[in-house]
Amino acid sequence: MNHTGTRLDESRVIRAPHGSTLSCKSWLSEAAMRMLMNNLDPAVAEHPQALVVYGGIGRAARNWECFDKIVEVLKRLEDDETLLVQSGKPVGVFKTHSDAPRVLIANSNLVPHWANWEHFNELDKKGLMMYGQMTAGSWVYIGSQGIVQGTYETFVAVAKQHFGGKAEGRWILTGGLGGMGGAQPLAATMAGFSMLAVECDESRIDFRLRTRYVDKKAATLDEALGIIEDANAMGRAVSVGLLGNAADVFAELVKRGITPDVVTDQTSAHDPLNGYLPQGWTLAEAKAMRAKDEAAVVKAAKASMAVQVEAMLALQKAGAATLDYGNNIRQMAFDVGVQNAFDFPGFVPAYIRPLFCEGIGPFRWVALSGDPEDIYKTDAKVKELIPNDPHLHNWLDMARERIAFQGLPARICWVGLKDRARLAKAFNDMVKNGEVKAPIVIGRDHLDSGSVASPNRETEAMQDGSDAVSDWPLLNALLNTAGGATWVSLHHGGGVGMGFSQHAGVVIVADGSDAAEKRLGRVLWNDPGTGVMRHADAGYDTAQDCAREQGLDLPMLENK
Amino acid sequence: MNHTGTRLDESRVIRAPHGSTLSCKSWLSEAAMRMLMNNLDPAVAEHPQALVVYGGIGRAARNWECFDKIVEVLKRLEDDETLLVQSGKPVGVFKTHSDAPRVLIANSNLVPHWANWEHFNELDKKGLMMYGQMTAGSWVYIGSQGIVQGTYETFVAVAKQHFGGKAEGRWILTGGLGGMGGAQPLAATMAGFSMLAVECDESRIDFRLRTRYVDKKAATLDEALGIIEDANAMGRAVSVGLLGNAADVFAELVKRGITPDVVTDQTSAHDPLNGYLPQGWTLAEAKAMRAKDEAAVVKAAKASMAVQVEAMLALQKAGAATLDYGNNIRQMAFDVGVQNAFDFPGFVPAYIRPLFCEGIGPFRWVALSGDPEDIYKTDAKVKELIPNDPHLHNWLDMARERIAFQGLPARICWVGLKDRARLAKAFNDMVKNGEVKAPIVIGRDHLDSGSVASPNRETEAMQDGSDAVSDWPLLNALLNTAGGATWVSLHHGGGVGMGFSQHAGVVIVADGSDAAEKRLGRVLWNDPGTGVMRHADAGYDTAQDCAREQGLDLPMLENK
Ligand SMILES: NC(=O)c1ccc[n+]([C@@H]2O[C@H](COP(=O)([O-])OP(=O)(O)OC[C@H]3O[C@@H](n4cnc5c(N)ncnc54)[C@H](O)[C@@H]3O)[C@@H](O)[C@H]2O)c1
Ligand SMILES: NC(=O)c1ccc[n+]([C@@H]2O[C@H](COP(=O)([O-])OP(=O)(O)OC[C@H]3O[C@@H](n4cnc5c(N)ncnc54)[C@H](O)[C@@H]3O)[C@@H](O)[C@H]2O)c1
Repeated sequence: MNHTGTRLDESRVIRAPHGSTLSCKSWLSEAAMRMLMNNLDPAVAEHPQALVVYGGIGRAARNWECFDKIVEVLKRLEDDETLLVQSGKPVGVFKTHSDAPRVLIANSNLVPHWANWEHFNELDKKGLMMYGQMTAGSWVYIGSQGIVQGTYETFVAVAKQHFGGKAEGRWILTGGLGGMGGAQPLAATMAGFSMLAVECDESRIDFRLRTRYVDKKAATLDEALGIIEDANAMGRAVSVGLLGNAADVFAELVKRGITPDVVTDQTSAHDPLNGYLPQGWTLAEAKAMRAKDEAAVVKAAKASMAVQVEAMLALQKAGAATLDYGNNIRQMAFDVGVQNAFDFPGFVPAYIRPLFCEGIGPFRWVALSGDPEDIYKTDAKVKELIPNDPHLHNWLDMARERIAFQGLPARICWVGLKDRARLAKAFNDMVKNGEVKAPIVIGRDHLDSGSVASPNRETEAMQDGSDAVSDWPLLNALLNTAGGATWVSLHHGGGVGMGFSQHAGVVIVADGSDAAEKRLGRVLWNDPGTGVMRHADAGYDTAQDCAREQGLDLPMLENK
Repeated sequence: MNHTGTRLDESRVIRAPHGSTLSCKSWLSEAAMRMLMNNLDPAVAEHPQALVVYGGIGRAARNWECFDKIVEVLKRLEDDETLLVQSGKPVGVFKTHSDAPRVLIANSNLVPHWANWEHFNELDKKGLMMYGQMTAGSWVYIGSQGIVQGTYETFVAVAKQHFGGKAEGRWILTGGLGGMGGAQPLAATMAGFSMLAVECDESRIDFRLRTRYVDKKAATLDEALGIIEDANAMGRAVSVGLLGNAADVFAELVKRGITPDVVTDQTSAHDPLNGYLPQGWTLAEAKAMRAKDEAAVVKAAKASMAVQVEAMLALQKAGAATLDYGNNIRQMAFDVGVQNAFDFPGFVPAYIRPLFCEGIGPFRWVALSGDPEDIYKTDAKVKELIPNDPHLHNWLDMARERIAFQGLPARICWVGLKDRARLAKAFNDMVKNGEVKAPIVIGRDHLDSGSVASPNRETEAMQDGSDAVSDWPLLNALLNTAGGATWVSLHHGGGVGMGFSQHAGVVIVADGSDAAEKRLGRVLWNDPGTGVMRHADAGYDTAQDCAREQGLDLPMLENK
């Protein structure tokens, strides 16, 4: 075996087993195995044969040897053992107990002074590391649906804040139709906006056309603008994928004096080596240069990002609601001299933080049976348990109608402290009663209320200035481990890249047992609870009110 | 209450309760409370009224309000609850279960891009953070004894490597007699060396005289050298505390052409603002300037460190065995232009790593009864269980004879994977059988085999280049949480300062119960096990052999 292992194997096609037959010794390890495999399902992952799930080079396992070994270990894992995974490599199996997690994961973590892409890439090349992004390395990515809800919520909030709630006749400019960015056109049209999304890789546009996330493809800016104009004239929202370089197109719009209503971006700017195509380069040229001269690629990419950010600033000045959608493009431009790069806000402080204050974030679940009917039944259960939330009901209906499942059927729903444990226990009952055909896996994104420190994104502009304090996600991971989650992960660098974030993941299995019911009750209360706690500690009234209402035990709260 | 709370309260004198009466609801929470208090015992802590335990500004709690609240919460904590402590502040209490930790701690953690002293100090001043060092914020500091054994082991290894095992007639030059550094003179004479220790704060020298850690005090270099010469002439080893500035004295020795046999340093160089006195300044001047102009202090301190490191390099050239003893002074000097600062090695790769490969490190335990007899009984038990290790027996005898207990009686012993769980279970039996008067608390330093990533110290020059990978300490903390340790902590910046390390602590209580026996068996096997795992993964033969011998389950090992 090559010291660095096999990173690319064109022959591999991974799909999680469906149905209720176990290949592992329990549903807990079975769930970990299926979710790892599901992350690499060709319908889910961006480049499964390279183990890349989404977000640049976000991987599910370090290499194929490690993948095989993880599966092998999960198959033999006892219910009082815990597997340790270090940057995608299964490094140890230790005795714990039945209420402890079955898998503990740490991905991409570097001592701060060395926490940059240069050092990471060096280690990655030596076969010592892997980039885990958020849900790639923690095995709970569910394809583009995961991000549709978040993006939809954001666009709805934008419409409310800037356009009196009316998105009709308005359009959003963005870049990137990758793993996460591909959700943008669907979320936009769901929210009533038209969208022009610039993407440099035609295969990405075609993939989004196939899955019905984008409506049309255009080869030129004029063509794209024409499609949007026509739709607007007919009172309809349309989304267009424009083949091109975002830096070019954004700058061209400034030049022409055309101002979109909303401007954002979801190229993989957080990773200037692998995630952003410099202006004037073809994809093939970029690929060759990455192998030959990394520094040159990074330099060219950052220069183009500066052009794009300059254009975003100009469009903001011209009246567009401009927001950073969490890819760290402002920091990259700032690094190469765009001093006012941070003049447009990140989406979290602008639109999402009020939700975080109540522990509301991207709660999600997956039917291990593989049967879409199981998800539809849980959809109905959610409506039943949360009867008076038309926004949520509307989301569930639209999701069912317009979002194709990818891999194992899954659902996402932004719900908070007051609802998560309740829903989870109800799902566990459904498993117990046989209403669904197999256990349900419950998890969330790392981008959540209590699980991330990321000063350019989730924790940007915290009220007390504690943006960079990462004690919080670490406590979150420790507490979820203590509570008995099925797997827990600690990552670095997700979303915004090396050096800029630390975050924790949690996944827990509802297998219908009484033991699971207790664990679900603890973990899915504690997990959003830490989010409310973190925001209450930072001084947010909404969070302090929520803590009091829900009876959280925050010892220093009364002294505030 | 002031937003930043009370940092200094001259009226406070804290001592842990002794005896077997509980103030908390169980021995687990009682142990946490007593160990927190013991960290602030005037006999243990460097500046207890400022909550400073050791190592510059390493604190046990964020401020006195937080201290009081932690104690209050521990007294009411149920045996299925877990207290979360964020940089010394008790932020939440959550339901877990009886085999979960009672306290989970995260101290001083910052997102890497912001992980520097400037940003830390800003947050610290706002009352949002606290520096936890290693065992200060994780409540298992046991005074200078803790470090004596490590320093002793190191000096013995130095004598073996450089002087054929004979230290007689040889002397060590060092700086700093603080919380940890104060152990140097005792460790040196135990190992057979004389020592000249330069310390700028006379009260520190006097404190070490009182506790019998240093033999003599000198006011001038001539006086100090005279004392050492006289002792050498009489075939004896002596230690001298010289009042002065280490940079001055080290440089003066170079100028005079006097070369010690061994050179090292333990000023708090890792913290240039608070830990190192610039040349030509008085303590009072430094205190005033710290309040007035932080940047000026840091600049002056680093300039003096550069002088000291230049002198250390010159002495190395002249033939002295020169080593960095883990205070990051090389990095500080390097930062201000001493390009060859790293020409002398750190003590870990030079002398300690072979021990880490077998999971051997600073295992320690504390008698909650407060009765020294309990420790003497455990000493005897260790000898009984590890009968064929004269080195270890010798240590236990010397420790008993020459080391005064500080606060709760405690013992430290460098033992590894094959012994820790065995000893712990035997201690638990002693509690069960009433051989000792109260439960025993078992822990370790964060400076241990599997619990730290610190590329300038514990993980310097790893064989595979993985020095900066911090997945390992994070996995260690998660696994110890899963295994049922009593409290677990994740820290940043201990030892070498902000940005340069990430590390985990673990403490577990032997309360004599069967449940504790199971937890001890898991945690004190798993904890050193992760150290052997980490070194086996890095390719060290000794670690791989140890893993195989001890039957560790390391899935990828056979492929190496
Ligand atoms: N705010 C959020 O909630 C959130 C969520 C997920 C991801 N993100 C961030 O969004 C970014 C995108 O994530 P992803 O998973 O879609 O990544 P991805 O790597 O799968 O997709 C990025 C896409 O951008 C395209 N691209 C790169 N350079 C371009 C250029 N110059 N012009 C046009 N297109 C270009 C690529 O071809 C690719 O399709 C990441 O930085 C990620 O961290 C934000
Ligand atoms: N290698 C190890 O195992 C290990 C263990 C613990 C601590 N350390 C490191 O050693 C250092 C010391 O730790 P500590 O707990 O003793 O810290 P401390 O702050 O308690 O003591 C430092 C001492 O140095 C003195 N000092 C400062 N500047 C001086 C100068 N210019 N000349 C002479 N004396 C000076 C101070 O007066 C103080 O007494 C820290 O950096 C710590 O991280 C290493």
